[in-house]
Amino acid sequence: MRVFNIAIAGFGGVGRATANLLLSRRQRYREVYGADVRLVSVCGSRSGLSDPGGLEAERLDRLETGLSGPDFVAASGADILIEAGPSDFRTGGPGLAYIRSALAAGRDTIVMSKGALVHSGKQLRELATGSGAMLKLSGAAAAALPTIDLVDHSLRGCEVLEIEGILNATTNFLLDAMTTKGLGFDAALKEAQKGGFAEADPRNDTEGWDTACKLLILANFGLGADLTMDDLAVEGIQSVTGDRIEAWRAEGVVPKLVGNLTRTDGKFRAAVGIRTYPLSDPLANVRGKDKAIRITTDAMGDTIAIGSGKEPFATAAAALKDLEHILSARVAVPVSISEPSS
Amino acid sequence: MRVFNIAIAGFGGVGRATANLLLSRRQRYREVYGADVRLVSVCGSRSGLSDPGGLEAERLDRLETGLSGPDFVAASGADILIEAGPSDFRTGGPGLAYIRSALAAGRDTIVMSKGALVHSGKQLRELATGSGAMLKLSGAAAAALPTIDLVDHSLRGCEVLEIEGILNATTNFLLDAMTTKGLGFDAALKEAQKGGFAEADPRNDTEGWDTACKLLILANFGLGADLTMDDLAVEGIQSVTGDRIEAWRAEGVVPKLVGNLTRTDGKFRAAVGIRTYPLSDPLANVRGKDKAIRITTDAMGDTIAIGSGKEPFATAAAALKDLEHILSARVAVPVSISEPSS
Repeated sequence: MRVFNIAIAGFGGVGRATANLLLSRRQRYREVYGADVRLVSVCGSRSGLSDPGGLEAERLDRLETGLSGPDFVAASGADILIEAGPSDFRTGGPGLAYIRSALAAGRDTIVMSKGALVHSGKQLRELATGSGAMLKLSGAAAAALPTIDLVDHSLRGCEVLEIEGILNATTNFLLDAMTTKGLGFDAALKEAQKGGFAEADPRNDTEGWDTACKLLILANFGLGADLTMDDLAVEGIQSVTGDRIEAWRAEGVVPKLVGNLTRTDGKFRAAVGIRTYPLSDPLANVRGKDKAIRITTDAMGDTIAIGSGKEPFATAAAALKDLEHILSARVAVPVSISEPSS
Repeated sequence: MRVFNIAIAGFGGVGRATANLLLSRRQRYREVYGADVRLVSVCGSRSGLSDPGGLEAERLDRLETGLSGPDFVAASGADILIEAGPSDFRTGGPGLAYIRSALAAGRDTIVMSKGALVHSGKQLRELATGSGAMLKLSGAAAAALPTIDLVDHSLRGCEVLEIEGILNATTNFLLDAMTTKGLGFDAALKEAQKGGFAEADPRNDTEGWDTACKLLILANFGLGADLTMDDLAVEGIQSVTGDRIEAWRAEGVVPKLVGNLTRTDGKFRAAVGIRTYPLSDPLANVRGKDKAIRITTDAMGDTIAIGSGKEPFATAAAALKDLEHILSARVAVPVSISEPSS
């Protein structure tokens, strides 16, 4: 049975959920892919753990200080990296170094944090192409909501003309609370922060940057665009007033923060801002922390997907979907995984 | 450049749309897959045409009588069969003989008519497994609406707990017309028949059989179930009265004909019948001839897809999506296509 050694870099809630879900699915990997999947290392920013024989769930609460960084992952003998670090699109975040190192060495890499992909997407694609490594990113592109999947797989062969996405759960939750409870932005935000549905500093979500990151990743990795953040007009929801919400309600429309991408004569245009939808539009009925996307193509019309998985499990499951696609490809096409480092 | 010879069996509206779309995408196949895709034969029930060098669009209006049947397809040198015949789940329809012959000979096969898959699904799967042929069926499983794709690809690794699908366009159109116009079934049907949205004999749609076929295909081919039509409770919309519609409207709910599949302790239960949804449910807002599916999984919660492609283009595009998945797999894994018949 072929062994696949997995490393997880970034070990917060999502990284841990991924580790536990992966360990619970080992029997499935054996049965479906003939793959002996071992979690050989995990690490956060300062501590980690590795074992070439594979880690079990009960050991994951006792990380050792100092075991961290791309060299630690390489030395753990990983064939596949799952990156689950915090996202920072202005610097690439701590994940960038891990991803670069893994792709350069030919390790198949599953990326969950958006920052590295937005900051250095082109370079990462080139590294992957150069080494033959697979680069997967469902977890960074709205996670359990199928987005890249739809473009890549379900709509394969069709030309994508337009994408509209409700891609950020926090802003959808806030707008939904404002609409259904008649609250202004500040009051809704306070309520969301109390309930743990918004960060203490919510600007990455509320100013539209998270939506912009996902839209950019979808455009660049799903549609072959080459956009940077400077190409996007980005507006958030922070200046939406209770009066405005009331006016929309009187008109019978529902506001959503939407990432919009259009392609005309091969040229991409992308923007993030508020759009309103009549109640008869399925996008109007995307509630709470759900997300959604509408993809318009030449041959298949409009395809809408709506996702409502609970975090962090849904993002973990999205990353492990990527893992199965890698297993599937690697088992079907036996290739030598380069640099089986020791 | 590797040559892929394609045959299309069944040459009504969908078969013709598929041929034309395929011919228009030949440049794409060359660029993306390094594949020289040639349409070497087409046939309906009594006439056809073949050319080992490949047919062009302008020749497809001049079929020759007598050129038809599985042996004709085999003799045309096809590597891949696209089956687009009429569906009949009680007999398997004319497509069954074509599909059996192609799979037995190791030809990758794309099935669009549901009948053969419902009638002889198990046998066809075994034939494909035995010969190593790929059997694809997006066109038979709600076409442009991603259904099998979601289970197979986007939700890979998750356990499917329940599926609810608005899988039949005609019944959705009728119920929508009845609800928005307050018509009874007979009046709505007459209107739909006038507009070409319902067959002269609409019972396959209105009595729920088409929905049942799609649900069965999804269960057996997507989830590894082994259901037959006898395992399904099937109800249609033919007995829905205007009074009933009015009562639902008064309650604020919308009726839909839904195929429902649940899995409990590994056991599948499937049924087709009317369900009602509140207006806040995205399934309530699936209008006209659109279709939709909601898939509930253990790790990703609810995933909804809604499709609205125009026929026959959308079904043709679904079949050609399958073709690209075959090209992708066959180009990545060079295998000898058996029986390169002459």
